[in-house]
Amino acid sequence: MSAPMLDGHPAATTDVLHRLGRIEGQVRGIARMVEDDRYCIDVLTQVAAASRALQGVALALLDQHMSHCLVEAARAGGPDQEAKIKEASQAIARLVRS
Amino acid sequence: MSAPMLDGHPAATTDVLHRLGRIEGQVRGIARMVEDDRYCIDVLTQVAAASRALQGVALALLDQHMSHCLVEAARAGGPDQEAKIKEASQAIARLVRS
Amino acid sequence: MSAPMLDGHPAATTDVLHRLGRIEGQVRGIARMVEDDRYCIDVLTQVAAASRALQGVALALLDQHMSHCLVEAARAGGPDQEAKIKEASQAIARLVRS
Amino acid sequence: MSAPMLDGHPAATTDVLHRLGRIEGQVRGIARMVEDDRYCIDVLTQVAAASRALQGVALALLDQHMSHCLVEAARAGGPDQEAKIKEASQAIARLVRS
Repeated sequence: MSAPMLDGHPAATTDVLHRLGRIEGQVRGIARMVEDDRYCIDVLTQVAAASRALQGVALALLDQHMSHCLVEAARAGGPDQEAKIKEASQAIARLVRS
Repeated sequence: MSAPMLDGHPAATTDVLHRLGRIEGQVRGIARMVEDDRYCIDVLTQVAAASRALQGVALALLDQHMSHCLVEAARAGGPDQEAKIKEASQAIARLVRS
Repeated sequence: MSAPMLDGHPAATTDVLHRLGRIEGQVRGIARMVEDDRYCIDVLTQVAAASRALQGVALALLDQHMSHCLVEAARAGGPDQEAKIKEASQAIARLVRS
Repeated sequence: MSAPMLDGHPAATTDVLHRLGRIEGQVRGIARMVEDDRYCIDVLTQVAAASRALQGVALALLDQHMSHCLVEAARAGGPDQEAKIKEASQAIARLVRS
């Protein structure tokens, strides 16, 4: 089952790239707000929105990772399976703690 | 490869139960600090410690889940595999956002 | 402007104590789910709920702290004001990162 | 007590602008990693680093907000003080939950 392609990338990758482009714009917008001396609380609201958007990217990447790499490793079994699950657990821990 | 047993539970489960017992004690200790009118910032430090401990439990449970349920689902393949990965993704999202 | 008292505690403290009592019960309930070998994802849902509840306590304590200690320190001014704000910032950082 | 100026901004603002510039670069770097089909886990590590950097900006803004706006409101007292503290509490809640 292969995902539809767009711009030479599978749909999930294109979606992640669109999101990252939007986040880059959000971060630039926050810098402009700081330069314009906008009210702290309004700036903080935009920082929280950009953080949530980055989390969304992380969760999308993790979902893809589990659907592809982890599934393959589970089918292969053995030490590679254990290593991949440990690696995924550590990546999730970094996200939960970040 | 079966994990060593203790108290009729696999080692990973016993570890999670010990951690939960400690967290219950931490929460009770926080209540006592509030009753004794202890300084807010010291109470907050203990609340942050209990939160981190709860996260540790969540990450341990997630690791076990991936090592067992997800691996089985990946080997079975088909719609169950997709459903289990979606379910795990949603559980991770709840953790990252909590 | 003094808050209404209940059980010898101001209302805000009584609310925090009620919440902590509920969280202690939630943690005990999670331990029981683990002992009964309940489905990982259901256990994780309860862990996320307890984490959110602990965050709620932290935010309530922080709100009280700002309304009382920080306000007093700001009125007093001087080095105590700076010290209190630094201390509050560090407590917020621990929460955001936990 | 006025902070040293640089580029017409107080030092704290210049620091926040530098950090935001670096975060914009990090987000662009993450997009390049995704385009180059780099390993998911390595991309996730960079996403977690960018998230932590954004949190750092939020905490710096909040610290400035407390040092200036909250202190002024506390000295003024009255309904403005209560409103400002409520507003700060809500901003902190958005950060803790994002």
